[in-house]
Parts: sequence; C-alpha cells; structure tokens
Amino acid sequence: MSRTADPIRALVSQLSRLPGIGERTAMRLVHHLLRQDRALLHALAEALVDVADHVHECSRCCTLTANAGACSVCDDHRRDDTVLCVVSTIQDMAAIEATSEFRGRYHVLHGTISPLDGTRPDDLRLQPLLARLHGDDKAVREIILATPPSVDGEATALYLARLLGPHGIALSRIASGVPVGGDLQFADKPTLARAIALRRSM
Amino acid sequence: MSRTADPIRALVSQLSRLPGIGERTAMRLVHHLLRQDRALLHALAEALVDVADHVHECSRCCTLTANAGACSVCDDHRRDDTVLCVVSTIQDMAAIEATSEFRGRYHVLHGTISPLDGTRPDDLRLQPLLARLHGDDKAVREIILATPPSVDGEATALYLARLLGPHGIALSRIASGVPVGGDLQFADKPTLARAIALRRSM
Repeated sequence: MSRTADPIRALVSQLSRLPGIGERTAMRLVHHLLRQDRALLHALAEALVDVADHVHECSRCCTLTANAGACSVCDDHRRDDTVLCVVSTIQDMAAIEATSEFRGRYHVLHGTISPLDGTRPDDLRLQPLLARLHGDDKAVREIILATPPSVDGEATALYLARLLGPHGIALSRIASGVPVGGDLQFADKPTLARAIALRRSM
Repeated sequence: MSRTADPIRALVSQLSRLPGIGERTAMRLVHHLLRQDRALLHALAEALVDVADHVHECSRCCTLTANAGACSVCDDHRRDDTVLCVVSTIQDMAAIEATSEFRGRYHVLHGTISPLDGTRPDDLRLQPLLARLHGDDKAVREIILATPPSVDGEATALYLARLLGPHGIALSRIASGVPVGGDLQFADKPTLARAIALRRSM
C-alpha cells in the first residue's frame, strides 16, 4: 500500500474525480469519514476492492454481477425464456426489475448509439445479443426494446429493429407518454405531443 | 477481505452512509466507478486505507496529520511562536492557511460548545491547549479566538476568554461584519447589525 505525503489530500483528489463531487464536497466527505470509527473507512475500502475484484459482465445478458458465470436473473429457471427485454444500462434493468412486472430475460447494451458522444453500434453489446439468439436463447419469441425514449435511445431502438427484424422475432417498444399520476400541464411539450400522437383507442 | 453476496449493493450501502449521498447518488457513483478502469477503484480503496491507518491528531495543535509526531505547521520553525489561533475545525484552519495572512501557530478544538448538540467543553481539545500554554508554548503572547461567529462559536469564544483570561495572555476575536466585496442590501440582518455595532473610527 503506497504511502503518499498527505493521505487526506490524496483521498480528496481521488473522491473529487467522481461525478457530482467537487473538491469542496470531497473535503467535506473526508472530514466526515475522519470523524467516524476507522473501521468504517476500512469497510468502505473493502467494499470498493470487492467490487473491483469480483464484479464482471454476466456471460449471458452482459449485466454486471459477482456471480461466477451468469447473473442471478439468467440463473433463475423460473423466468420466461420467450421474452427478452433489451435495456441500455444496468440501472434501467434494475428499475424494470423493481416494478416486478416483467418476468422474462434481459440483455444490457451498456450504452445507446450516440453520434455526438461517439458511441457507435460496435461499442454496444450487440454481438453477444445476436449470439444468444442463435445459441442458448432460441426460445425467444418477443424482444422488448426498452432503450430510453430519448433521441439516442430511439435511434438505438430503430437500429435494433433493423438488426433483429430478419430474425423473425416479434419486436416491441416500451410505451412513452405522460407519466402515471403526472399532470398534463407540467408535462414537457415533446412528451405531451407524443402522448397525443401515440393515443390508443378505448 | 470479506466477500458479500452482492458487492455492488454492499458498496452502495457503504457510500449512502456518507452525508449528502442518498441511495440513488450512491448507485450513480458505483456505476460510474464500474465504467472506470478497475485500477482506479483500487486506488480509491488504498487512499481510504491510507487515511484510516496514517492520519491522527497532531501531538501539539490537535489538527489531523499523517506526520509521525507534530503536523507540518507545528514542525515549521519559521512560524511565529508568539501568536496562537484557536479554531473549531481543521477546515477552518485550512481556510485561514489559504489566506497566507497568518504566520503564527494553531490549535484545533474539534468542535464548538453546543448545548443543543450536546457538545460540552470537555468534548473539545481544551486540556491539550492549556497543557501547551504551560509547556512548550510559553512564548505565546496573543491568542486569536477564531471560532465561527455563530451562536455556538461565540459561546465557545466566551468560554475560552474566561478560561484563558487568568493566563495573562492577550486575547482577540476575529472581526465579523459584511464580507469584503459583499453587498449591504444582500447581507443578512444580524451581519449588518453587527457591522454597524462593531464599526471602527477612521
């Protein structure tokens, strides 16, 4: 373990590289940590090392997991093998899991196609997705494109639709419109416009 | 190094104990960290362990330091031994150091007397301060009470004034009023009231 001249400064500099944490916030965090039991600092350090050493991409759905091979969702034999939900990030996967509405499988792309950010299709986990559909996941009958309803997310969904179209699997896109419980007057214009354009008969 | 079932969840829970970091922010930080090189996670963990293992209170002024005995300010023989600045926190000490205006010694109380928070005089580093004045720091001619100009800070300064009065050392209090470059119309009422009450002839 290297020993720098000023460990407090070193830790502040490490922390201030995190998003949303400036030098002042980092300083406040370090001083908070210094007021705690030193065991808590060690616990935090161990949690970091644990993540660094044991978290990797699931061999099947590309989510991040500490399981040896596949993640707990992929390992769960009670899940529906016929529906596959494609998401951009593991946070989005976690958000869908939290609804308890979806019992199928997932695939995490780790990004969206974004010409502005320089994220190209090759940067996404598309090859593992195609490999799944040709390999272990031949049972898939429907693929839900659950990339976000943003410009990049829509572009990614469109790209996926073209890529997956020839596979003869039903494709669907998550609904987009005014949030449940949301007020129409506070909805932004594009959302409200889409809610009207994509209205459904009842 | 203990291995929990879900290292990501464990790290999120560790981070969300920090002030100003809720579960959602912690999740965002962890996902940011996961996108980085794993070496950076190890570097952050090492910085934490380094602080936990090497930072302790200075044997003289009670600031936090990684030096073996006294801190770099106490070790600096060019500092003025006749003036001692008493501050509440090491952040306040760092703020005064950053001005380059003060070349004397410091003493860090690690708090202010606060009946509401339950911080009593015994919880502050007062005994080390008295020990200094009777021991190595007999040269002190002036003590600047630089506790914050808040209710607790003023109470602490008053307590210190009574405690240190009998030592025959000149006591002073940092000036309080409208900040330099500050607009009078935006100054809060107590600050403006004090600026008028503590006006100086010119």
